[in-house]
Amino acid sequence: MSAVSPLAPTTFAELPSIAGVRFATAEAGIKYKNRTDVLLMVLDKGTEVAGVFTRSQCPSAPVDWCKAALTKGIARALLVNSGNANAFTGKRGRETVRLSAAMVAEVVGCRPKDVFLASTGVIGEPLDPRKFATVVADTASRAAAEPWLAAAKAIMTTDTFPKVASRQVSLGEATVTINGFAKGAGMIAPDMATMLAFVFTDAAIAAPALQTMLSAGVKESFNAITVDSDTSTSDTLLLFATGQVGPRVESARDRRLAPFRAALDSLLLDLAHQVVRDGEGARKFVAVTVEGAASDRSARRIALAIANSPLVKTAIAGEDANWGRIVMAVGKAGEPADRDKLAIWFGDTRVAVKGERDPDYSEEATSAYMKRDEIAIRVRLGLGEGQGRVWTCDLTKEYVAINGDYRS
Amino acid sequence: MSAVSPLAPTTFAELPSIAGVRFATAEAGIKYKNRTDVLLMVLDKGTEVAGVFTRSQCPSAPVDWCKAALTKGIARALLVNSGNANAFTGKRGRETVRLSAAMVAEVVGCRPKDVFLASTGVIGEPLDPRKFATVVADTASRAAAEPWLAAAKAIMTTDTFPKVASRQVSLGEATVTINGFAKGAGMIAPDMATMLAFVFTDAAIAAPALQTMLSAGVKESFNAITVDSDTSTSDTLLLFATGQVGPRVESARDRRLAPFRAALDSLLLDLAHQVVRDGEGARKFVAVTVEGAASDRSARRIALAIANSPLVKTAIAGEDANWGRIVMAVGKAGEPADRDKLAIWFGDTRVAVKGERDPDYSEEATSAYMKRDEIAIRVRLGLGEGQGRVWTCDLTKEYVAINGDYRS
Repeated sequence: MSAVSPLAPTTFAELPSIAGVRFATAEAGIKYKNRTDVLLMVLDKGTEVAGVFTRSQCPSAPVDWCKAALTKGIARALLVNSGNANAFTGKRGRETVRLSAAMVAEVVGCRPKDVFLASTGVIGEPLDPRKFATVVADTASRAAAEPWLAAAKAIMTTDTFPKVASRQVSLGEATVTINGFAKGAGMIAPDMATMLAFVFTDAAIAAPALQTMLSAGVKESFNAITVDSDTSTSDTLLLFATGQVGPRVESARDRRLAPFRAALDSLLLDLAHQVVRDGEGARKFVAVTVEGAASDRSARRIALAIANSPLVKTAIAGEDANWGRIVMAVGKAGEPADRDKLAIWFGDTRVAVKGERDPDYSEEATSAYMKRDEIAIRVRLGLGEGQGRVWTCDLTKEYVAINGDYRS
Repeated sequence: MSAVSPLAPTTFAELPSIAGVRFATAEAGIKYKNRTDVLLMVLDKGTEVAGVFTRSQCPSAPVDWCKAALTKGIARALLVNSGNANAFTGKRGRETVRLSAAMVAEVVGCRPKDVFLASTGVIGEPLDPRKFATVVADTASRAAAEPWLAAAKAIMTTDTFPKVASRQVSLGEATVTINGFAKGAGMIAPDMATMLAFVFTDAAIAAPALQTMLSAGVKESFNAITVDSDTSTSDTLLLFATGQVGPRVESARDRRLAPFRAALDSLLLDLAHQVVRDGEGARKFVAVTVEGAASDRSARRIALAIANSPLVKTAIAGEDANWGRIVMAVGKAGEPADRDKLAIWFGDTRVAVKGERDPDYSEEATSAYMKRDEIAIRVRLGLGEGQGRVWTCDLTKEYVAINGDYRS
């Protein structure tokens, strides 16, 4: 169980530093022993922020806090812990959030509302704010341009590898940097699809423009991945801009932002794919593309029905080209579909066409394809122009093992 | 994998015979070796029929056939095979259905349209009608009042035990009998929730009245169970009435039908529960009750979100009272919910109340409860009067094993 996902990257890039961002990690012993579980990021004055959160009707206390704090668009610090989600913890949970933000505000020298908070881990256990009291001042004093991998590691729960990504891109005459890190690895489904992801740039972009770009970018990245169809109470994606490099940009429609927007989208997709590659128990990375649907929305819903089907996911785990289960999943999606117009591909091999097995179907070729680490499923409905794409992983015995005794 | 589910009944009742119903089984070698895989049921003249089918947009060829045949409300035979679903088999599948019905019609002496067909097993493999040619005449000649367990066994796929149920009840001055049998065991989700179930009575009830009672009865039985959230292409529930005992009843509103209707509902629920108890890999039978929701529909949707959550189901498999995942599932259902009014019970133990862990929560008592075979989860939302109840099983490594190499 502690083994690293076979889909993990083989090397980790060293991320450049971001002007205006310093951080440190600590071992607060919240749940885990002998590993970091608290991350404090200190942001220079002038940092603006945007965020996207879980759509759960039962969000965690930190999510409630961040949503309220976001209205000003200003950020000076981010405190994250792993091991306890501070979700469904009632009044005590709200009090923990209030006290934690106050502690950070004091050492950083800002208002509590400029402090962003995120917690990940078990739900329903009270999170003792005294755990932070012992580390907040210390981490603030140590905060520096540390290796970003250390930040990514401190927020891991059942993740088997840290997830980082970086892009450098022109903004006007300047070259700006975007760094991000994320953690999964279960309760990953739209919407939102990751538990925690944080992105930082040294560019000078106004909060409303950041928000527009983030909300658009999340749609085809974090909101297009699913590990187990379960949506967390804690999903949080924050984008911080320290404003220390390049021209100040006020509007998302500013043409100078085009390369930045493309780089941001690419970074979000990179992180989202890493979350899937580290899905609990995952051994296969699966892309599901649906074309020819009645609409894009319909295509996406069918793609999600396929990506969330336990029978499709177990077949992929078994390296079984069981396209009958794809037909089943298309049929159950409740979207327009005509059995006799359906075509299905695994990779480049068309396995079914016009409502039956492809006459040229080769079991051998398809079986060989199913042994790969990365599987592409494509479905053409033949009804319209709607397209959609989502990513998922297979469902293995390890998923059951990991989640059958996670809490105890 | 071949072991019988630990949730199987310890004894099987011997079902009484039903006047007007004869049957025989055969080994046609469709997929399985050394077991029966074809069932032919011959029904006396005067038999009326009702049916409910999968809502899949990609139904099997036999489902299409039955839906068309049902318009007359008359039945003379039922031919069922296991090992091949004849789904997504295109023109050849339709031809197989047509030829099979013609073969049966010839030996039984009826019109092809009076023959009902059902197939269960792998999707997308052509089903050779010659497989039936070798057994249809033989089974018709042998058809008799056989032990019903033999019928239930012939239609099994990954089922580990045959599922039968029987009721006797007053109808006017007469005592009528209802026998039923069903098979699961994966692709079990509303709507419909079983793959195949067949119910027979000797009562004399007109087809429209049968249909009204069946459609009503399925709502709280087969449409309230889920094993894996996957809806089959083949789900078929048929109710046959031979009309040989008691007074003829034309309308479902006839007061004399009240005991019959109650007995039918009870039999449908009995069979539906057996399907859950034989869910692939199941070791726990789980009832999920949601109360105090905004509406009954909302309660049912929340109950299904809980019952279909892989994280809830793996926690139950791990005998872990992880009520945080219940909160998660309530939150993701997209229905009205107020975190701070939520209360959750495992059995009689309230584990959470008013948005946090119950102050009197006992880990020890709850852990002991989770070791049981039957687990009751109750959620009170505190919003309104809406109620809903569904049944499911846990998600174990055996589910993954069974479905990871079912086809190959």
